[in-house]
Amino acid sequence: MSDYNFSTFHNKNILITGGLGFIGSNLAIRLIEIGARVTLVDAMIPEYGGNLFNIAPIKDHPNLTINFGDIRDTHAMEWLVRGQDYVFHLAGQVSHVMSLSDPFPDIEYNIKGTAVIMEALRKVNPHARVVFTGTRGHYGSAVSLPVKEDAPTNPKGLYELSSLTAEKIVQIYNNTHNIHGVLLRLTNVYGQRAQMRHSRYGVVNWFIRLAVDSETISVFGDGTILRDFLHVDDCVDAIMLAAIVDEARGEIFNVGVDEPTSIGEIVKLIIEIAGTGNWKFTPFSEERKAQEPGDFVSDITKIREVMGWEPHISLQEGLTKTIEFYCDHKRHYWS
Amino acid sequence: MSDYNFSTFHNKNILITGGLGFIGSNLAIRLIEIGARVTLVDAMIPEYGGNLFNIAPIKDHPNLTINFGDIRDTHAMEWLVRGQDYVFHLAGQVSHVMSLSDPFPDIEYNIKGTAVIMEALRKVNPHARVVFTGTRGHYGSAVSLPVKEDAPTNPKGLYELSSLTAEKIVQIYNNTHNIHGVLLRLTNVYGQRAQMRHSRYGVVNWFIRLAVDSETISVFGDGTILRDFLHVDDCVDAIMLAAIVDEARGEIFNVGVDEPTSIGEIVKLIIEIAGTGNWKFTPFSEERKAQEPGDFVSDITKIREVMGWEPHISLQEGLTKTIEFYCDHKRHYWS
Repeated sequence: MSDYNFSTFHNKNILITGGLGFIGSNLAIRLIEIGARVTLVDAMIPEYGGNLFNIAPIKDHPNLTINFGDIRDTHAMEWLVRGQDYVFHLAGQVSHVMSLSDPFPDIEYNIKGTAVIMEALRKVNPHARVVFTGTRGHYGSAVSLPVKEDAPTNPKGLYELSSLTAEKIVQIYNNTHNIHGVLLRLTNVYGQRAQMRHSRYGVVNWFIRLAVDSETISVFGDGTILRDFLHVDDCVDAIMLAAIVDEARGEIFNVGVDEPTSIGEIVKLIIEIAGTGNWKFTPFSEERKAQEPGDFVSDITKIREVMGWEPHISLQEGLTKTIEFYCDHKRHYWS
Repeated sequence: MSDYNFSTFHNKNILITGGLGFIGSNLAIRLIEIGARVTLVDAMIPEYGGNLFNIAPIKDHPNLTINFGDIRDTHAMEWLVRGQDYVFHLAGQVSHVMSLSDPFPDIEYNIKGTAVIMEALRKVNPHARVVFTGTRGHYGSAVSLPVKEDAPTNPKGLYELSSLTAEKIVQIYNNTHNIHGVLLRLTNVYGQRAQMRHSRYGVVNWFIRLAVDSETISVFGDGTILRDFLHVDDCVDAIMLAAIVDEARGEIFNVGVDEPTSIGEIVKLIIEIAGTGNWKFTPFSEERKAQEPGDFVSDITKIREVMGWEPHISLQEGLTKTIEFYCDHKRHYWS
């Protein structure tokens, strides 16, 4: 299933925050398959990504523990991090649009939540390794393409800023309190097990829903804006490698695809693979234009060199897998 | 008293958060002298800088209002920002050492508090101008000297990180919600009206206390580490100019002195001016060494060009004024 050697995780104790969400659940399924003992913590906040159906393939596995709870819960977190070999910290508010109208969930979950986890580790389990997943949004508008890890960070909104702050919290605990941390900045990730109820994050997945429902996809501007779209299975490989490659410690890595795709192209491909749906051009509103960070392509030289990771799943393959998954399980995701 | 024209502030309504603290109270006294109507908000958190004696020269002035309260108090802040022409946002946790053992006050006051103020402005008074005072600590260790505003930001601790995050919150509200904001990064500021009860921030002021008390000042390492030390009266000029120079909007400015001084030099100068006190070299502990950001000198080209500001007070003059102030008012600051 994977090109990498993940046998290290066999019999290891692993905590995944946001474990019932999109990336967390895909990661959990892979880790359970490899023979890890996995605890998922998830606050199941309405509108966020937590969905019990996400872990249907492993739900009765003896190595799986589900713990409902908020990462800001200091006492619970001190129990949950105890004895873990690895902590994959994926929980958070991840919608730019939602952070525009209310910045406080970003501050609470993304910033304070991360500090609670790092403090808990400092107090009761300073030897665990932590992988934090941030976003390409840390950069804001790209100054030049492709974007390297040392590019300026000018986040466009509170979601992106709070994620950058969380990244820097993990880095400070790595440097100051000697807790092994690795920082990933994920590009647009798509695939099976993402929330599909609203359009406020996960643009590719939302396009897939519209296509599957034979609706019309609005492409803003002229559809030429470039992005790199990463399938969640490739993303999970990167997250797992980040935990086991010693040289990754304390470092920031882009996780993306170095071949960009335009929004117009991916929309056409989705409609072609789904065999249904339409699209049309829509002019940018003034507000939307101000928020649009423009073309973005990740430079993935660093993660390739340090971890030997690169994406393997073509858009054709990834979109096909995703569309098939949602066609089969629509009722668990549409409402 | 000042080389700049500050008549704009006459009859204007002004809110200062952290207004009973070190820089806030010096600013308040200046603004009241100019004829502004000034409201001070201060949470009077024990160990922080709030001190009623700081505003003794203006305490009975009809244009002064004191409002005790926490900047995280959403409803109170919505009342307090109403009708203000300028908001000087100075409140915050400012100790690196304190943030090492407990990161949550930094997140609460510096990050959440700033978001509460900006949200309040967005809702009830989007036309006010905001000046935010951050720290040179946003940069972390200097990559090259002197440090310009576009240098990398790698804060060493939660205090510095939370201040950087607050700066970026104000910038996002400037860019996205059209609230006029100006961002200052202050170097080491010293002078009258700083807290003098503990050594956890304000290194120059702490040295002054030790000298005045005829105690021994420990100089870590060999005393050659360079810093730029700014007197609070110069700092207040910069803060006031930032509010009225139109071209400053949305921009980040270093506020410092481009002639660096070594720690050893300033200690000797303090002892000479005070006419009392001693000093000795002390080796760095491992922990202290890891936390020490090394030499720092601000590049102040930008603020000089855009605002026409530069420091006017020599170390000799600034230290003399500071030492005289504390000798006269020791009982209000020592305990």
